[in-house]
Amino acid sequence: MREASPNRRGLLTAAVLAPIVAAAGAPAAHATEKTPEGTRALRKDLEQARLSPVLKRALFPDPVIIETLELLHDGAVYYIRVRSRDGAEGFAMTNRRLAPLAKPIMLKRSLPYMKGKDARDLDALVDGVFARGLNYKHQGITFWTAVSWVEFAILDMLGNIAGLPVGALIGDRTLNRTHIYYASGNRGNAPEAEVALLQSLIAKSGAKAVKFKLGDRLDYSDASNARDEALIPMARHALGDKTALFVDANSSFDVSRAIETGRMLSAHGYDFFEEPVRFDDFDGTKAVADAVDLPIAGGEQETSHFRYRWLIENDAVQIVQPDVLLGGGYVRATRIARMAAVAGKPIVPHISGWGLGFLHILHFASATPNIGPYQEFKGDKDGIPYEVIGSGAPLQVANGAVDIPTGPGLGIRFDPDYVRALKQVEV
Amino acid sequence: MREASPNRRGLLTAAVLAPIVAAAGAPAAHATEKTPEGTRALRKDLEQARLSPVLKRALFPDPVIIETLELLHDGAVYYIRVRSRDGAEGFAMTNRRLAPLAKPIMLKRSLPYMKGKDARDLDALVDGVFARGLNYKHQGITFWTAVSWVEFAILDMLGNIAGLPVGALIGDRTLNRTHIYYASGNRGNAPEAEVALLQSLIAKSGAKAVKFKLGDRLDYSDASNARDEALIPMARHALGDKTALFVDANSSFDVSRAIETGRMLSAHGYDFFEEPVRFDDFDGTKAVADAVDLPIAGGEQETSHFRYRWLIENDAVQIVQPDVLLGGGYVRATRIARMAAVAGKPIVPHISGWGLGFLHILHFASATPNIGPYQEFKGDKDGIPYEVIGSGAPLQVANGAVDIPTGPGLGIRFDPDYVRALKQVEV
Repeated sequence: MREASPNRRGLLTAAVLAPIVAAAGAPAAHATEKTPEGTRALRKDLEQARLSPVLKRALFPDPVIIETLELLHDGAVYYIRVRSRDGAEGFAMTNRRLAPLAKPIMLKRSLPYMKGKDARDLDALVDGVFARGLNYKHQGITFWTAVSWVEFAILDMLGNIAGLPVGALIGDRTLNRTHIYYASGNRGNAPEAEVALLQSLIAKSGAKAVKFKLGDRLDYSDASNARDEALIPMARHALGDKTALFVDANSSFDVSRAIETGRMLSAHGYDFFEEPVRFDDFDGTKAVADAVDLPIAGGEQETSHFRYRWLIENDAVQIVQPDVLLGGGYVRATRIARMAAVAGKPIVPHISGWGLGFLHILHFASATPNIGPYQEFKGDKDGIPYEVIGSGAPLQVANGAVDIPTGPGLGIRFDPDYVRALKQVEV
Repeated sequence: MREASPNRRGLLTAAVLAPIVAAAGAPAAHATEKTPEGTRALRKDLEQARLSPVLKRALFPDPVIIETLELLHDGAVYYIRVRSRDGAEGFAMTNRRLAPLAKPIMLKRSLPYMKGKDARDLDALVDGVFARGLNYKHQGITFWTAVSWVEFAILDMLGNIAGLPVGALIGDRTLNRTHIYYASGNRGNAPEAEVALLQSLIAKSGAKAVKFKLGDRLDYSDASNARDEALIPMARHALGDKTALFVDANSSFDVSRAIETGRMLSAHGYDFFEEPVRFDDFDGTKAVADAVDLPIAGGEQETSHFRYRWLIENDAVQIVQPDVLLGGGYVRATRIARMAAVAGKPIVPHISGWGLGFLHILHFASATPNIGPYQEFKGDKDGIPYEVIGSGAPLQVANGAVDIPTGPGLGIRFDPDYVRALKQVEV
């Protein structure tokens, strides 16, 4: 297995990936030094980033005691409403696919834990609910997503109090608009049909970046190989050199097939290669990253920050992909972004469908200095009864970009009649 | 930080830990060779162990089609009953603490997946339920325990068909009786009171090994340090050199405090040190293992076999602790045991309380060649209405040991009146 030198990778990155990597800023000097001292210094900085405070507590001089937490639903979708002792309110949507599975964790763990707490201690609260009793044994997306939803409602409430959007509560909001990319979810269709779909996504939106799937999700076959091998050159040829092209293998390959595929992608100037091998095979992921000349992206399944630290410290991924909704919320995603920044790595957040993932990606991007230039967008697939505060319309893509809501909290408002009709779950 | 040489650790192990390490057998030659070739050869053998077939399919010449799966309960405890198309039946208890949290995963994912499948494909079924759709995103104990319970019921059914206990279905059953150890769950009590408790556990059971807690569960304090520092020498002095002494820190320490504590333990001839640092801080765990002269034990929270591979390949733990119930069942725990055997590491399984964890540990031990000499026992704390087939009594400790049931499947029978009165959950 050939190892790409860090310099070669750096050079290539500079040529092909300028916009993505520019976003990350320069790594700390020791992040590229492979000496024992360099590793120790990097570890120390990563730990400092992981443990640094996130919520801007100074915005809230007075206690914000969480008095009630309600789980509401319309028969299919769950919502959380939180109210403070002083009457402030926050409201957040869960996720249609995950909430039915995580409902007992919400009802028995994450909602009861927050009751009576001071919302200003949010950093400590997301750590506390995990450390409480034996909750840490549930580490994983099922647990953390049940914390995220509560965190969203609490941040919405805090934003309402401060009159600031979520981004301004967790960092410095420096972005009001971001470019987006569309991702196709297809596998198994003909390469020609897939390219036509990508072209239509670009045509309707003005997007300058798209992503498509490779492999067969946790597996690959002769058929998926044949499709991949046709699609990789065909998409580049059809979409031209100015379109940023990303691929997502969803853990499909073993290391040797991933390297083969990675070299194909690199030869056609692809911009990143997401989850080439099993997401939890970190050694395998690093082996692929070391052998190919394009950035490897990963992290969407990961909820352990010690493991994120490993991925970053060992340069197993070059693009870091936390998911705000799957991983415990904004505070925790920000900690990951700060660790990535230490090593000069950009964040291209993973998006969760079946909910408001596209909104959370925007707020997170607005305050994350090392955010990549393109955020995945899925908003127009959802018929959620909300409007953006100020505009009165839902989020829309124009010229390949979307405005990030500026209203307080999550910056959106659900149809009041719809909310009034929601039923309360017995807690 | 000083590194203990592998030889020094080996020497000490030979002196203090003979019975535990003898159980593991000799590691493959390359497992101790730290060359790139040695690492590659070790990885290859670990992969072969991880992927090797477990269920003895040859015992079942005819298909065993899973026709019905029922979720039953008595108001507090859930059970799973499975029946084949040909009328064979299997029955398994879930876990009082975990089942309420994992219930939607059972109802929506693990139970429906198994319906209509051939139980002889059990190895593929436990992989298949994870790979199905987006289930892999739920990696962790909440998901895998919901698979374990179904696997237990299926193995019970297969045992009933073959007339063999579970151990004989997943390996060669070579053990009919095993020594046990008791673990105290206390923290914060006075060292004298804790030592008195350990003495009473030994007196009532004849156990030759005990375990107690250090630290403060995911944290430590001046108070817990003072207790640890008093208790470590006091317990050794009071219980004598012939008692095997284990400690469990439940992820309490940072690396430097863990090393300090490990050296204290080593100076007093302790036999293993469980979860010294955060369970998911693998680098930290390895740093402790490299710096102290006693075996580090871990693995109970881990459900990724790629991560187990890392722990074993990097010698981050010297004693490997899968949990049959938390990790997806017997097939998956056996794969971990086989990886550990490649590196000459013994298995000391973690036990799950609030259910039949003590029974599963015994069956697993009966067929695991590298099992440690002492299994944790919690059986006498539970008022579960079962008897051992053949003996008519529940599992009992005598002279520090317990017989492993020899009856078919799980080898126990629940009170038929109790089972008849169970209610069925609407699926």
